[in-house]
Amino acid sequence: MRILLDGMGGDYAPTEIVKGAVLAAREFNEQIAILGPEEEIRKCLADEGWDGNNIEVINCTEVITNNEAPAMAVKKKKDSTIARGMALMKEGEADAFISAGSTGALLAGGLLLLGRIKGIKRPAIVAFVPKIGMNDTTLLLDCGANVDSKPEYLLQNGIMGSTFVECVKGKKNPVVSLLNVGAEAAKGDELRKEAFKLLSDSDLNFSGNIEGRDVVGTDSDVVVCDGFSGNIFLKSSEGMALSLLNLLKSKLKEGVVAKLGAALSYNKLMEIKAEFDYSKEGAAPILGLKGAVLKMHGNSKAEEVYYAVKKAVPYVNNDVTGKIEKAIGRKSFLGL
Amino acid sequence: MRILLDGMGGDYAPTEIVKGAVLAAREFNEQIAILGPEEEIRKCLADEGWDGNNIEVINCTEVITNNEAPAMAVKKKKDSTIARGMALMKEGEADAFISAGSTGALLAGGLLLLGRIKGIKRPAIVAFVPKIGMNDTTLLLDCGANVDSKPEYLLQNGIMGSTFVECVKGKKNPVVSLLNVGAEAAKGDELRKEAFKLLSDSDLNFSGNIEGRDVVGTDSDVVVCDGFSGNIFLKSSEGMALSLLNLLKSKLKEGVVAKLGAALSYNKLMEIKAEFDYSKEGAAPILGLKGAVLKMHGNSKAEEVYYAVKKAVPYVNNDVTGKIEKAIGRKSFLGL
Repeated sequence: MRILLDGMGGDYAPTEIVKGAVLAAREFNEQIAILGPEEEIRKCLADEGWDGNNIEVINCTEVITNNEAPAMAVKKKKDSTIARGMALMKEGEADAFISAGSTGALLAGGLLLLGRIKGIKRPAIVAFVPKIGMNDTTLLLDCGANVDSKPEYLLQNGIMGSTFVECVKGKKNPVVSLLNVGAEAAKGDELRKEAFKLLSDSDLNFSGNIEGRDVVGTDSDVVVCDGFSGNIFLKSSEGMALSLLNLLKSKLKEGVVAKLGAALSYNKLMEIKAEFDYSKEGAAPILGLKGAVLKMHGNSKAEEVYYAVKKAVPYVNNDVTGKIEKAIGRKSFLGL
Repeated sequence: MRILLDGMGGDYAPTEIVKGAVLAAREFNEQIAILGPEEEIRKCLADEGWDGNNIEVINCTEVITNNEAPAMAVKKKKDSTIARGMALMKEGEADAFISAGSTGALLAGGLLLLGRIKGIKRPAIVAFVPKIGMNDTTLLLDCGANVDSKPEYLLQNGIMGSTFVECVKGKKNPVVSLLNVGAEAAKGDELRKEAFKLLSDSDLNFSGNIEGRDVVGTDSDVVVCDGFSGNIFLKSSEGMALSLLNLLKSKLKEGVVAKLGAALSYNKLMEIKAEFDYSKEGAAPILGLKGAVLKMHGNSKAEEVYYAVKKAVPYVNNDVTGKIEKAIGRKSFLGL
């Protein structure tokens, strides 16, 4: 297996990306190719004391930033890490592409240079949402690839999410829910009402609607939504969690008694913080593209890179892409 | 001023509603009319030792539950507290109607029996979202009245929210934002792009888009959204906050040291909990109806009822309804 790593994506590139590549190369018996300016990447590898042969460097002279118009950037910057990565995937020269770079550029590059799985209308960006206190996550998709959605996209999100969870998490017949404003079948806007019908008529293990407040405590493995509300869901729960934890931190610094209390409950507070540490989840896949494309958080460090590579292995080995194509092709999923 | 109280709405009706009415009647020099089965309500009043004359009872023999189809229920149950309350408002016999009953029935009753303010396309349900650590709230609307929205509804939400904040909170020229998936002007779906233009061209103090994660820490007084994403926002942040606080509680009970720590930091933890205590915010208005209709949480107790009455007074005294009608009528708001 040959896994491509965007050496220039994210806030800590290339140093942390290279560090993570070395961590992964030490453990996994896979070929890792880092894309980026060769000299700089090789210097980082030398700093890590790496002299093995399962890390190669693919020289790329350009980088796409978060501030560029994605589609334009991937078309113009043919020697950028993202454009080169997608092209190598397209040519069958690589099995997975992992990047902490611009989500928009990854999506645009995926669509324009790699292409969609046959039958897929729109790729979807996935997020792993913590099931608070359960040491598990649920797969939320789409989180922002398509803000103007159609019912069929939501059905396809369910199929893609279900296939991914089955292949990568090894969970048989994953439970799929639809993010909605109420639990009853008749709830929601026109988009949700139609999607509910399609999901009900499909082969999926569809458990019905789920409300925003129930996702963090859900039994569902996959929560289906459109890119707009998925993004709102994700950012609003994230914002609330961060604000609360910050408030907790500052409150517990006020006064000697509270400080002492905080010191004594320190371990427990750290356990709570750990609930939000999803570095081990690896990168989030962009499902629906013709190959394993994984997006890391922009602030990813070596540990996240390591786990992203680790997660890419079963993605490729279990042929998630091929299985999504097969599932999408099955008539029954479309209720025909 | 005559304020109607739905004596049969919510989980703790009628006891807590009556208790709250008595608290309010003792402090405010307004006429309070409780709607409900007269005998039962009078018994509750007697239990509270109330013998004043600024609480009256309006006998209603029916109640609409949360399980009924709202529009059907308000049409059929003409002697229900909600139908009677709306009818009294329509006839000019009352200045405000406060209920902890079914939101759907209140909205349907408001639309069918009371009617919309002239020029208003759709009423909107408001929520007060905590600005964490700032001892303040921002007004989020719509939170679920209209799940299928048009750009003009969003503009009108901005106008209604801005007018409410100006009148009731006394804040001049409130800052209005649009809930969206990104901060830049070009972000979002078709609905958001159009709404952004309308809001930009209006007289409102429009500050642009706001992402889900920034609402709890925002300087905005009003956050505009459609009913679907508003509902998702509200319930997902609520779910995250509750899960976190519960986790905190259970973690701090594990082991003697953590328990001692929690005991010492108890006051601070209570201060954090208080950040989420919005009983003092009173009830949330359904804006756009031809009169002051306020919705309390279903789990409201006497204190919430007291604050709802307290909040209704400036709503009526400042003629929010009349001012919304005037604002909506202003050409400039529609960018014409």
